Amino acid sequence: MYVVIVYDVNVSRVNKVKKFLRQYLHWVQNSVFEGEITLAEFKRIKEGLLDLIDENEDSVVIYKLRSKPKRESLGIEKNPLEDII
Amino acid sequence: MYVVIVYDVNVSRVNKVKKFLRQYLHWVQNSVFEGEITLAEFKRIKEGLLDLIDENEDSVVIYKLRSKPKRESLGIEKNPLEDII
Repeated sequence: MYVVIVYDVNVSRVNKVKKFLRQYLHWVQNSVFEGEITLAEFKRIKEGLLDLIDENEDSVVIYKLRSKPKRESLGIEKNPLEDII
Repeated sequence: MYVVIVYDVNVSRVNKVKKFLRQYLHWVQNSVFEGEITLAEFKRIKEGLLDLIDENEDSVVIYKLRSKPKRESLGIEKNPLEDII
């Protein structure tokens, strides 16, 4: 499956979340990752995020897509997908 | 079409971008909007964003989906979709 993950977490935890997601996904820009993952990876990501975030304060939204979506980029690409995929 | 828009723009422009996108889309969390729009609205959004951002410094990514994607939310929902849709 292809996921786009956006997070809005307290600054004290934001680097841990970023480091964790980097193991599985492509960093797009501030607080956004995307990439193709397996169902097993999806479960690991969810569990890992739940360990890292404060569920009473932080927010993470995972968009679950069948395949890589069409995307349009305005301005600069902070981390171009073409470089790694 | 259904879009998820994420932006990473200079703090001096971030409020203008947020105000602009709020006219068309649902605010999800910091720097993320989503919603169902027409092709005409999509064009207006793109033009509006290009007017507001500095293309040499800011980054906006528009994910274009056929319909509302499956989504999973961890932690709090900063602005629950159910409230308005």
